[in-house]
Amino acid sequence: MTINNYVSDTDYNEMINIRRYLHQHPELSFHEAKTADYICHYYDQLGIDYKRHIGGHGIVATIKGTKPGKTIALRADFDALPIQDQKDTPYKSTVPGVMHACGHDGHTATLLVTAKILHQQKQGLSGNVVLIHQPAEEVAPGGAAPMIKDGALEGVDYVFGTHLWASLPVGTIHTTTGDFMAGADRFTIEVNGVGGHGAMPHDTKDAVVIASALVSECQTIVSRRIDPLDTAVLSIGKFEAGDAFNIIAGKATLEGTVRTFSPEVQTQIIQEMTAIIESFESRYGITIDFDYMKGYPPVVNHEAEAKRVIDIAKEIPGVTDASFTRPSMTGEDFSYYLLEKPGAFFFTGARTDGPFYPHHHPKFDFNEQAMRIASNTFLAIIASFN
Amino acid sequence: MTINNYVSDTDYNEMINIRRYLHQHPELSFHEAKTADYICHYYDQLGIDYKRHIGGHGIVATIKGTKPGKTIALRADFDALPIQDQKDTPYKSTVPGVMHACGHDGHTATLLVTAKILHQQKQGLSGNVVLIHQPAEEVAPGGAAPMIKDGALEGVDYVFGTHLWASLPVGTIHTTTGDFMAGADRFTIEVNGVGGHGAMPHDTKDAVVIASALVSECQTIVSRRIDPLDTAVLSIGKFEAGDAFNIIAGKATLEGTVRTFSPEVQTQIIQEMTAIIESFESRYGITIDFDYMKGYPPVVNHEAEAKRVIDIAKEIPGVTDASFTRPSMTGEDFSYYLLEKPGAFFFTGARTDGPFYPHHHPKFDFNEQAMRIASNTFLAIIASFN
Amino acid sequence: MTINNYVSDTDYNEMINIRRYLHQHPELSFHEAKTADYICHYYDQLGIDYKRHIGGHGIVATIKGTKPGKTIALRADFDALPIQDQKDTPYKSTVPGVMHACGHDGHTATLLVTAKILHQQKQGLSGNVVLIHQPAEEVAPGGAAPMIKDGALEGVDYVFGTHLWASLPVGTIHTTTGDFMAGADRFTIEVNGVGGHGAMPHDTKDAVVIASALVSECQTIVSRRIDPLDTAVLSIGKFEAGDAFNIIAGKATLEGTVRTFSPEVQTQIIQEMTAIIESFESRYGITIDFDYMKGYPPVVNHEAEAKRVIDIAKEIPGVTDASFTRPSMTGEDFSYYLLEKPGAFFFTGARTDGPFYPHHHPKFDFNEQAMRIASNTFLAIIASFN
Amino acid sequence: MTINNYVSDTDYNEMINIRRYLHQHPELSFHEAKTADYICHYYDQLGIDYKRHIGGHGIVATIKGTKPGKTIALRADFDALPIQDQKDTPYKSTVPGVMHACGHDGHTATLLVTAKILHQQKQGLSGNVVLIHQPAEEVAPGGAAPMIKDGALEGVDYVFGTHLWASLPVGTIHTTTGDFMAGADRFTIEVNGVGGHGAMPHDTKDAVVIASALVSECQTIVSRRIDPLDTAVLSIGKFEAGDAFNIIAGKATLEGTVRTFSPEVQTQIIQEMTAIIESFESRYGITIDFDYMKGYPPVVNHEAEAKRVIDIAKEIPGVTDASFTRPSMTGEDFSYYLLEKPGAFFFTGARTDGPFYPHHHPKFDFNEQAMRIASNTFLAIIASFN
Repeated sequence: MTINNYVSDTDYNEMINIRRYLHQHPELSFHEAKTADYICHYYDQLGIDYKRHIGGHGIVATIKGTKPGKTIALRADFDALPIQDQKDTPYKSTVPGVMHACGHDGHTATLLVTAKILHQQKQGLSGNVVLIHQPAEEVAPGGAAPMIKDGALEGVDYVFGTHLWASLPVGTIHTTTGDFMAGADRFTIEVNGVGGHGAMPHDTKDAVVIASALVSECQTIVSRRIDPLDTAVLSIGKFEAGDAFNIIAGKATLEGTVRTFSPEVQTQIIQEMTAIIESFESRYGITIDFDYMKGYPPVVNHEAEAKRVIDIAKEIPGVTDASFTRPSMTGEDFSYYLLEKPGAFFFTGARTDGPFYPHHHPKFDFNEQAMRIASNTFLAIIASFN
Repeated sequence: MTINNYVSDTDYNEMINIRRYLHQHPELSFHEAKTADYICHYYDQLGIDYKRHIGGHGIVATIKGTKPGKTIALRADFDALPIQDQKDTPYKSTVPGVMHACGHDGHTATLLVTAKILHQQKQGLSGNVVLIHQPAEEVAPGGAAPMIKDGALEGVDYVFGTHLWASLPVGTIHTTTGDFMAGADRFTIEVNGVGGHGAMPHDTKDAVVIASALVSECQTIVSRRIDPLDTAVLSIGKFEAGDAFNIIAGKATLEGTVRTFSPEVQTQIIQEMTAIIESFESRYGITIDFDYMKGYPPVVNHEAEAKRVIDIAKEIPGVTDASFTRPSMTGEDFSYYLLEKPGAFFFTGARTDGPFYPHHHPKFDFNEQAMRIASNTFLAIIASFN
Repeated sequence: MTINNYVSDTDYNEMINIRRYLHQHPELSFHEAKTADYICHYYDQLGIDYKRHIGGHGIVATIKGTKPGKTIALRADFDALPIQDQKDTPYKSTVPGVMHACGHDGHTATLLVTAKILHQQKQGLSGNVVLIHQPAEEVAPGGAAPMIKDGALEGVDYVFGTHLWASLPVGTIHTTTGDFMAGADRFTIEVNGVGGHGAMPHDTKDAVVIASALVSECQTIVSRRIDPLDTAVLSIGKFEAGDAFNIIAGKATLEGTVRTFSPEVQTQIIQEMTAIIESFESRYGITIDFDYMKGYPPVVNHEAEAKRVIDIAKEIPGVTDASFTRPSMTGEDFSYYLLEKPGAFFFTGARTDGPFYPHHHPKFDFNEQAMRIASNTFLAIIASFN
Repeated sequence: MTINNYVSDTDYNEMINIRRYLHQHPELSFHEAKTADYICHYYDQLGIDYKRHIGGHGIVATIKGTKPGKTIALRADFDALPIQDQKDTPYKSTVPGVMHACGHDGHTATLLVTAKILHQQKQGLSGNVVLIHQPAEEVAPGGAAPMIKDGALEGVDYVFGTHLWASLPVGTIHTTTGDFMAGADRFTIEVNGVGGHGAMPHDTKDAVVIASALVSECQTIVSRRIDPLDTAVLSIGKFEAGDAFNIIAGKATLEGTVRTFSPEVQTQIIQEMTAIIESFESRYGITIDFDYMKGYPPVVNHEAEAKRVIDIAKEIPGVTDASFTRPSMTGEDFSYYLLEKPGAFFFTGARTDGPFYPHHHPKFDFNEQAMRIASNTFLAIIASFN
């Protein structure tokens, strides 16, 4: 197959429409039933074969070429986040407290229209293209592992995926050979203090004060305990304690994430957190429940496939910077695909013209032109195997 | 009037029934409509005159004696708290997340049956007895001030009230001449950080870490800034930040209470909190909203009336310790009545036989025999003016 | 005896000279040899009998009256503090790093001249006056206990003492009936971390970070663990760690003091400190040595003698406010005398006209007129027993 | 020149003797007069030309070959640290509080004997060898910059140096192409609180509590404010506050070091520290003096020379691991030489058989066999240019 046409203006407009529709109708991880319906409906209308309910709400569509060749999988995730959309755009979320604040709406729109274009060109296609629409990327244990278990990678030779990346300008394709994205774990800490009247602290064990000190003490793990040349992040995203201003809280719940690139650092952080938690138990004579869930392993690209992406991307119209970069601390369950098959994951620059809001921010948005570049890169990757 | 009968066993059983009914049907402050209905219905059945909707859900009933004399007001509050009842008793709360965790159910049961007994003896009564059923004691600005504004104390000469007190054994009547309960204020602190991806802390201003450090720094107010001979409490009852474990929180909300006995210490605490908050604004280049609501003034008993309570209580059957004590850090809007009329507030010991849970604890309960002693004390106070 | 003359201008000038000489020649607790020589020399010149080396550098002088009567002891302490004098006065300390920053120079000058006046009037004196010059008040175990053990109170019927008090205006005599000054304890905490290269924190256990967190955590004892109606102070006066900016410290030493009025609160603070220290040991897998030395008990005045002081003081020329006050958190080993004999300790107002510097401040000074009032009060106390 | 003999057993024994003598007679940075005498005396005895007092106590010796060729400089530092030697060895420091706890004694012994060997072979030497004996490596602004200013690198073509490295086993030669060691800065923070009596915290601004909170808050710089993919260390090596346990400290002094590899991160850390310090000034209404001294820039090896070291080292007897490694967070003023001339700095493994104590630890020691390998590597580097 030769790439005789990249994404057309019509295709691009379709992407925008799909993306904006999805943006207005976000669904939380593991609850993406209507989004799955939407995807299936799109494939139904085109007559593209697919299987659904793969590892939950997952969908695997296949475009079979007319000539023998490799089977290349392209993957897009489609879940949203529990964030209240604070943007002021016509396409802002219509679901209170739920928002596509990471760009998965764009991933899905990109992959659907890419599939349409490939389907239109299937006569020239050597081998097959597998479209993996994956739910639940945001929440461990994620959607990738169950989809793989359900056969999503059966017969696949190579796997590729991208993340639209709002901090990079449009025209950027970045990846690495090797470590690309961090291992991402999740934890919950429940401080079981003793509640009581707000005026009688000495009769209580104040869970707000205890948990606050615990948060501060946790800062020393990265600042003092981890080798400064290693990379580690410990973020506590959620702190909930107490029901009323005048009742000392008996319970505080912390939820957070840990990011590392090596099992040794991961292990050390768990040990340090355990030591901190046990010390607070001892200090106050209380119990603290600590639940640490190891999450996605690091995304480690395969060297040849990563180089293929960069080599190809340099030729894509509109790409001004296709290069190797340093890794990202963010996590992705794309790692599971790469543990099974050769492939690569890459970032597609998607910075907006306005003020910058990071991924997962209530005002997050991305530059929709990035979808066109991502789709063109996918098309070129497929072409490169033909 | 001579007290020719104290609370009978039948009366006491009625108190228990009323108390347990109310305990099963708690209502939050300012939302006590059904409890008010219940009280009115009780007076309706007895034929006792009352006015309702006094300062909200408040009710003022009056028993007129047949002879001239003083008008004595007795007050009970009837609101509950936003706490999930964790007791294992047949009469536990039937309302999820709402609980009579402070004993106001007992206050109401005590006052209703006291009213019944006085009504039965009204032929011998010199002067009048006013029964003040007050809503919304738990939440400033409280129910006392609007009830007074609506005339609850019109014509009243003296005012008395009690709190069943779970840390004191049954048989105890404690009060002070002068400062008895603390001034109780409320505050809210909203930390406006910058949220973002849990793996990219440097692009955010982490509201969990900021607010936790703020909680710790606030400990220095009481430990270092206030004269150790002064009395002060600063409790943060509620800490809420973040929506998801892997999203760094952009906002944290703290709610708490301050207790003091003097305006100077109250002023100093507000100044210290302001200094701390401004320093965190400066440290992180953010804004922090600080809303401080001065609440109930201290409960200051009138000397002659406090001595009257103790003198009388020593004669009450079952009272083993009627004495002056040191003040309590808890607050009460009974203070407003004492700013208008001579009177006194006192604690009636109500410790249970089982393990001790403080007021506002999810397993709080009180010893119901305390209601009988409280009622007998009310009856004896009325008798002492006859 | 009648007080036929108070302190004369000549006497007062002598006091000032003595005080300023002592101020220029301060000696640390337990090392007051030259000050003791000075005192003895004064008594030698007057022909007043004394014994020295009583409980260390202590001196007990005696003036015997010609008529029978009570034996009244008056006490002054004479040690200085390890503080660099930063005052700009002609009489500032000539000893580097040592300073009379608490007023003991004034106490000694007052008592010496008081002794001279009484000696001059001994013909009219009923009973005896004992002058107790005590070393080492500033550092536990103090000088009072060994002086008592060595017989300083033998034959004494009553004991009185005063502290010049820089925060009260001249003309003030303050005391209490009962609790007057706090119990004062001393502690040392040695954090045994692991030192190392400043660039490799993960190979160390950073004693500066550990001890700093320990200091912060200690704030919660007073702010959260002690009943707000109880009184407690925990101050860490000294923090020493590390030898060089680029070497992570393996050891940190904290020294401090605890002040309480009750053994229960004292016990609770020791328990809380122990719990904190053990929690840091557990957190970092290190040992922390904790040495807690109980110090002086609270100064508890005897009621009759305290009332005697206030009654008498009201008549003293220049006294404008002789009254009962609330207690002080400072400690004094005068407590030991009051555990043996009836008596009272009182504050003599000594505020300067210039800016206020508290006791133990490098710029501390007191108003010398206070010595005259203190001496007049002593003279009047003696007279009151005649 | 061909390397016809490496370090002989006799040479090695001489190294050990020199090293142990120096170890027993350490001198602090900028005060190494006697060590300089010792070095000069050694060269005097051999008849090697040198100049002394180059940039302070620095010495530059030169061995001129008989044939034309490049001029290669080899450098060793010779200052010690303010650490009390806690080793139990016959050669432990004889100077209280001063110790060769970083291995500079070994560097000097290595270079002196290397010079002797080269001097003995000078007939076969093409070009010249310059021996740079540098004082004051441990304390910025260091000894390298003034030595260079005084001409130490005049005529030099290449410069090499090594650090004996106690965490690597003997037989290891590690270096990098590019960033090898971090930039090392120094800072002092003086908290100007208000001191006072230990029992009256409210009259003071407690420098111990303030500085401790400041230390804790500084942990958030590395844990939250710096990009996790960047490398940064902030260590506070020294914390001094207060003179007595019962006097609240008015002043606290912190001294520390910052390590970074990029000017951007260095700048950000200074900004964050400034923000923290200003926030504490605002919180307590005090001044805090912040003195930040930028120190040595990062050691950045030149690629060709670093590869030369590794290529050569692989052939050295006893070298079992000559390889490129990741950078170290430690700093070195060898960076200044590399800013002027091509060259490389490398680590020579020096782990002892006993328990491991890091550089700058009071029990630090290194394996003396490392000196032999370091000398052999220097000899081979010189040979490689012949």
